[in-house]
Amino acid sequence: MIKKVIPFVHNKLKEIITTDDYVVDGTCGNGYDTLFLARLARKVYAFDINEQAIENTQERMNRNRIYNVELINDSHSNLDNYVEEDIKAAVFNLGFLPGSDERYVTKGESTIKAIKIVQEKLVQGGLICLVVYTGKFGGEEESSELLDYVATLDYDKYNVIKYCYYNKEKAPYVIIIEKQI
Amino acid sequence: MIKKVIPFVHNKLKEIITTDDYVVDGTCGNGYDTLFLARLARKVYAFDINEQAIENTQERMNRNRIYNVELINDSHSNLDNYVEEDIKAAVFNLGFLPGSDERYVTKGESTIKAIKIVQEKLVQGGLICLVVYTGKFGGEEESSELLDYVATLDYDKYNVIKYCYYNKEKAPYVIIIEKQI
Repeated sequence: MIKKVIPFVHNKLKEIITTDDYVVDGTCGNGYDTLFLARLARKVYAFDINEQAIENTQERMNRNRIYNVELINDSHSNLDNYVEEDIKAAVFNLGFLPGSDERYVTKGESTIKAIKIVQEKLVQGGLICLVVYTGKFGGEEESSELLDYVATLDYDKYNVIKYCYYNKEKAPYVIIIEKQI
Repeated sequence: MIKKVIPFVHNKLKEIITTDDYVVDGTCGNGYDTLFLARLARKVYAFDINEQAIENTQERMNRNRIYNVELINDSHSNLDNYVEEDIKAAVFNLGFLPGSDERYVTKGESTIKAIKIVQEKLVQGGLICLVVYTGKFGGEEESSELLDYVATLDYDKYNVIKYCYYNKEKAPYVIIIEKQI
């Protein structure tokens, strides 16, 4: 069956993440991806600029007795200040917290800055997964900035795939960047 | 690991085709997809307008002792004349036989005609898989005609996804049409 975008991403992550791996959730939101990653990896660094998102994620981790997540209430574009280890995977689910303030919306510029930092830390065979929402406030602009950026990545070093629904306007879509082995 | 386009398609087909199913290879070429389908399905109807392709595929079937393939030296746009059963899946690998005559290249109009016939015969949950080559002769035009067509499909009846490499110009890409259950 054709996978929706989040299951498509989770399936790819499940294939590669082991309990030895450090991973990043660039936008923890309500903590769904954080929880998914925490159950696969050694440690998750989970970022969000929205304090409410950090609180919601902390609560979800407590309820699920998850203790291998470091929650960071800062922009993912500062991840260099927090993450020392090599990274196996990073997820940027670029929606923003439903019902929350639009000033917390992700923007192309800071997302691309974060992607570039992760690219440096990413192990060979590692993945950067972006879920892009063109329907949200500022989403079209962020989407085109991200697509312009990933199209420039050297195809001898990175595989970049786009997975999208084609008969549904404004549907979220996926970009996956794989550092080649 | 990120899948290349053909393994991506084969993986989806493997998930749904059983030995009870009738399937279509719209462009048998050298018979690679035909062989893959024949090992999963009850019967494969394999089309090609190029007689050489039919011969090559017949030879591959003989070598592999495959007897559940009906080879048809006609355009896939005439498949209504040959296929009576409901179809579980159809593959249109729109490249043309390497080294062969460009007059045998697939064209958007006839491919879309064939897709429409298959849509009528497709069972719920069935798939139509298109591998599209923009780099070949006439490929850009065929690609844009196909994308225009699939974008119009009602998203309450069909899931249409596009899977493509985004940092590699002229790379082949995949469209999958799934008839919803």
